[in-house]
Amino acid sequence: MLPQTSRAGGFATSSERDDAVRFPRSEDGCICRWLAYSGSPVLLEELLYNRQNSLIVQSLHSRLGAEETNGDGFGVGWYGEQKTPGVFRSIEPAWNDRNLRELSGHIESGLVFAHIRASTGSPVQQTNCHPFRNGHWLFMHNGFIDGLHEIKRDLALAVDPSLYSEIEGTTDTELMFYLALTFGLKDDPPQAVARTVGLVESTGREHGVEFPFQGTIATTDGECIWAFRYSSKGDSRSLFYSTDLATLRELYPDNELLRDLDDESRLVVSEPLGDLPGAWNEVPESSYGVIQPGQDEMHPFTPITDTVGAAR
Amino acid sequence: MLPQTSRAGGFATSSERDDAVRFPRSEDGCICRWLAYSGSPVLLEELLYNRQNSLIVQSLHSRLGAEETNGDGFGVGWYGEQKTPGVFRSIEPAWNDRNLRELSGHIESGLVFAHIRASTGSPVQQTNCHPFRNGHWLFMHNGFIDGLHEIKRDLALAVDPSLYSEIEGTTDTELMFYLALTFGLKDDPPQAVARTVGLVESTGREHGVEFPFQGTIATTDGECIWAFRYSSKGDSRSLFYSTDLATLRELYPDNELLRDLDDESRLVVSEPLGDLPGAWNEVPESSYGVIQPGQDEMHPFTPITDTVGAAR
Amino acid sequence: MLPQTSRAGGFATSSERDDAVRFPRSEDGCICRWLAYSGSPVLLEELLYNRQNSLIVQSLHSRLGAEETNGDGFGVGWYGEQKTPGVFRSIEPAWNDRNLRELSGHIESGLVFAHIRASTGSPVQQTNCHPFRNGHWLFMHNGFIDGLHEIKRDLALAVDPSLYSEIEGTTDTELMFYLALTFGLKDDPPQAVARTVGLVESTGREHGVEFPFQGTIATTDGECIWAFRYSSKGDSRSLFYSTDLATLRELYPDNELLRDLDDESRLVVSEPLGDLPGAWNEVPESSYGVIQPGQDEMHPFTPITDTVGAAR
Amino acid sequence: MLPQTSRAGGFATSSERDDAVRFPRSEDGCICRWLAYSGSPVLLEELLYNRQNSLIVQSLHSRLGAEETNGDGFGVGWYGEQKTPGVFRSIEPAWNDRNLRELSGHIESGLVFAHIRASTGSPVQQTNCHPFRNGHWLFMHNGFIDGLHEIKRDLALAVDPSLYSEIEGTTDTELMFYLALTFGLKDDPPQAVARTVGLVESTGREHGVEFPFQGTIATTDGECIWAFRYSSKGDSRSLFYSTDLATLRELYPDNELLRDLDDESRLVVSEPLGDLPGAWNEVPESSYGVIQPGQDEMHPFTPITDTVGAAR
Repeated sequence: MLPQTSRAGGFATSSERDDAVRFPRSEDGCICRWLAYSGSPVLLEELLYNRQNSLIVQSLHSRLGAEETNGDGFGVGWYGEQKTPGVFRSIEPAWNDRNLRELSGHIESGLVFAHIRASTGSPVQQTNCHPFRNGHWLFMHNGFIDGLHEIKRDLALAVDPSLYSEIEGTTDTELMFYLALTFGLKDDPPQAVARTVGLVESTGREHGVEFPFQGTIATTDGECIWAFRYSSKGDSRSLFYSTDLATLRELYPDNELLRDLDDESRLVVSEPLGDLPGAWNEVPESSYGVIQPGQDEMHPFTPITDTVGAAR
Repeated sequence: MLPQTSRAGGFATSSERDDAVRFPRSEDGCICRWLAYSGSPVLLEELLYNRQNSLIVQSLHSRLGAEETNGDGFGVGWYGEQKTPGVFRSIEPAWNDRNLRELSGHIESGLVFAHIRASTGSPVQQTNCHPFRNGHWLFMHNGFIDGLHEIKRDLALAVDPSLYSEIEGTTDTELMFYLALTFGLKDDPPQAVARTVGLVESTGREHGVEFPFQGTIATTDGECIWAFRYSSKGDSRSLFYSTDLATLRELYPDNELLRDLDDESRLVVSEPLGDLPGAWNEVPESSYGVIQPGQDEMHPFTPITDTVGAAR
Repeated sequence: MLPQTSRAGGFATSSERDDAVRFPRSEDGCICRWLAYSGSPVLLEELLYNRQNSLIVQSLHSRLGAEETNGDGFGVGWYGEQKTPGVFRSIEPAWNDRNLRELSGHIESGLVFAHIRASTGSPVQQTNCHPFRNGHWLFMHNGFIDGLHEIKRDLALAVDPSLYSEIEGTTDTELMFYLALTFGLKDDPPQAVARTVGLVESTGREHGVEFPFQGTIATTDGECIWAFRYSSKGDSRSLFYSTDLATLRELYPDNELLRDLDDESRLVVSEPLGDLPGAWNEVPESSYGVIQPGQDEMHPFTPITDTVGAAR
Repeated sequence: MLPQTSRAGGFATSSERDDAVRFPRSEDGCICRWLAYSGSPVLLEELLYNRQNSLIVQSLHSRLGAEETNGDGFGVGWYGEQKTPGVFRSIEPAWNDRNLRELSGHIESGLVFAHIRASTGSPVQQTNCHPFRNGHWLFMHNGFIDGLHEIKRDLALAVDPSLYSEIEGTTDTELMFYLALTFGLKDDPPQAVARTVGLVESTGREHGVEFPFQGTIATTDGECIWAFRYSSKGDSRSLFYSTDLATLRELYPDNELLRDLDDESRLVVSEPLGDLPGAWNEVPESSYGVIQPGQDEMHPFTPITDTVGAAR
């Protein structure tokens, strides 16, 4: 009979089967997308849904709906009048979520993180959806830690003991966030992320993983946005930032939207949106950018590996 | 400012916006998929997940996961030792649903309906997921009623008043199911479906809809499966049935699975699965098939339009 | 064997079993709770969570969490800078919903409807959660239509055909909302609700239901709130409104919150909140109140039964 | 203004607020319920829903629905023809879950674990619902670890490194399950649970917690059920097992169900079900029972504290 035949050679446990069917642990498995916005206060729907042909508005939504497996939950974080940002996360596909649609039409913010998740194995649950929050910081990520299953415990041990119990989910991203917090994210984000990635790389390599880290990371304190692009292999997920508004206005003098945004408005995205030539600039390999009041910055990014102890 | 600008010319209500963004009411909007199996009892996972390269098993799952917008809920109906079939429906994407994975590894059945939904506008909720059940009958559908919004009330009025309150959801499919029940589905399925489609066509045309019906329908009483292919335009969604086992065994003498299934085992699917040449046969336009103990049948399908009253 | 024994005398269909187990169609079955607030803009959390011992704040939440079966979904509607109110509805128990917690801490509004649902039979799904919205109107309800299953079709037929397809869920409340819209809710709410209740009563009685309607209803256009208390039996669910602020300040001169709210701030609730003597006034049987800029009003409520046709 | 006033003295972070509102970390906070059945194969609905007045059947359901806060998810594990048990878990309140209702009417099993959860702080998500599974073992629990937040990391470090990454959720129960697996659950369940509870107690006391453990635990390998009752305080959650069938038949000679079950059929429950005098026997404080083929057993239970190292 069919069932017996197909199970000949030993019964696959349900979790083994799950692995086979659902969890492509390859580099290509994770195709999250994210967007970070800083600038004039806008309704979230302008960033997430509105499909008018303009710089900001060129739709993330078409991608939200069209990307084949970006249906494993989503999240939006925004800063309003409260110091702590609001976070709305859901395990439904973003394109189905009526509450997201509602909120996007009623919440206005000048600093927004949005993320659509494609799981590479972690359960689809609210506590695994980006962005993650600690105090008034947000953190999100597109990529993965190769060999996570083998090194997860070592990484968890490196998290500050006082923070350990705050971890709510099971993703590599949240773990990296808590490592970064351990390494001083709130004081020096680039250094903390560099030490986090460094620890991931050194721990992975101890376990025989050739290219432990891959991805882009964004974090914010509500004032500045830091966006990182790096992979152990030197072949990182893409990362783009928008051209400054003054230049764009010269390029597109008839675009009304460009006139309405202030000069500091800026988007950072995992993939270029829309089709305005000149609107998007790729963040180079092994770099990070800082979106901040005044002049934005771009710097090279190099992981820091502690020589003494793994974590401290 | 951006928001005002983009909303110039009047505020779009949330539902209007929803329409614009989410609800492509075109013919191509609905890309549900379904599968009906009759034959030797198999674990559901053999039909839904197992990826071995064989006739039955060739994976629906790869399609489940890969099809870009088949993430608007799913359902499985199966007949076991109870007279009434079991139905498991969920609004999560099928590829994420751990409970479906679990149940598929523990429930065995010789008659299974499975459906993956891509909404064309109805809310994503359990009561809108196929298959629908009434008594020991199941019903599912891939397609749509064009102009449903305009003719829904007329169709609902044609449902037998004693059945009206049983309707739980808001899909065109459930409505057609209750129309078919009104028209005697349990006594004569082909005639009941023909009258249902006829009513949809005549009502639609009264409202100026050129091609009111499009799709494939499957229904079962737990013994036989009736599968219909029809569209007002004469350009219907596809429908395939599997070649009889005896022939397949000759074609593929080394295939173990084919040896293990009984001769009556048969699949009907909205899209061909796998790549065994000779395994799939297209149901012709405007036809319906009957999978039953003994000889299966294929007949032409013609909608029946009542000349006297819309419903009776 | 046990299963056979227990099913002796005929197999209960799943829906029959559901009825037996889950659906107490008695008058006591529905114990929804709702709250309507109008006044100085407050964070939703002040209304929904904050437990400080003050007029507004005295916790709805303790009841939200403690009421044994108020776990069948909830909803919040609020008016902000947009003309159309936002609506957030979820099928999780309110006390579990992290997104509600988040949003409540970030959304401020001067007109809020909140509802916790205890289903009396309708499926627990977002489209069955109150408040319901049409254009910029909201509508919610605590109570039920006795014999709904028998009269649902007749009521649905009385809905304006152009509105019929807008109905998304399956509750008695949404149906009454669309009847009220049919009867001119947007022009004359008291008259439209009176005709709606009248139709429910006359239709129910035609079907032998002694006391067809029971409950309280609240509706708003974003400016005024109309709150109704009525039952066919003359023994209605309770309804309370808060004492005017000026009087409360005299009663509680030390209460800081009372000083911070403007004189027009008012709550209407299905059950009295908190324990400030003098804070709550019961709406009399068969009455409705109007919370509006300027003087609030209280009037007797009498259903209007059309003498000519059921609906028009 | 109201919001500012109420937040005077510093902004409460969302998680702080959550604590205040939702997380009563008192001993009385956790009121999970569970049921373990071993005996003649029965439909799950006989154990979970059927309300006939008989030993097994006396309804858990009335309690499922009536218990005020047992709405934070549920789970059912059952053994069928597969070696690995099936597990169905959901975050909806059990009384709302239509899929549970369906499955219960179609799945038959001779060994069932069922659990209704009332969260004491962990997020309501599928990976936090009992029973937990590893290989063909199931594990569930009613109670809590006092001071979990402080000792969670220490306990997690004591989990076998090869098992650490298998932990999917964030509950104390799953953590204890993995500790028990670390301590040899699959070879010697009583000893493994004793070492687990011992570690919880010693670690808790190192952190100043007076009574670290409280609760009842059930675990099974599909053949036997081990059920433990213990608390550090000597005042444990209740635990009952059913009287042997032969005795019950003498007590209730007219009860048909009792005639249909085999002599080995037995229930263990966190709270007595139904009202048959003589049907339930309380498991004494600091004891554990073994339900197994042949003679059941009852033994005293004493935590084992390793003198050398906490975990090994």
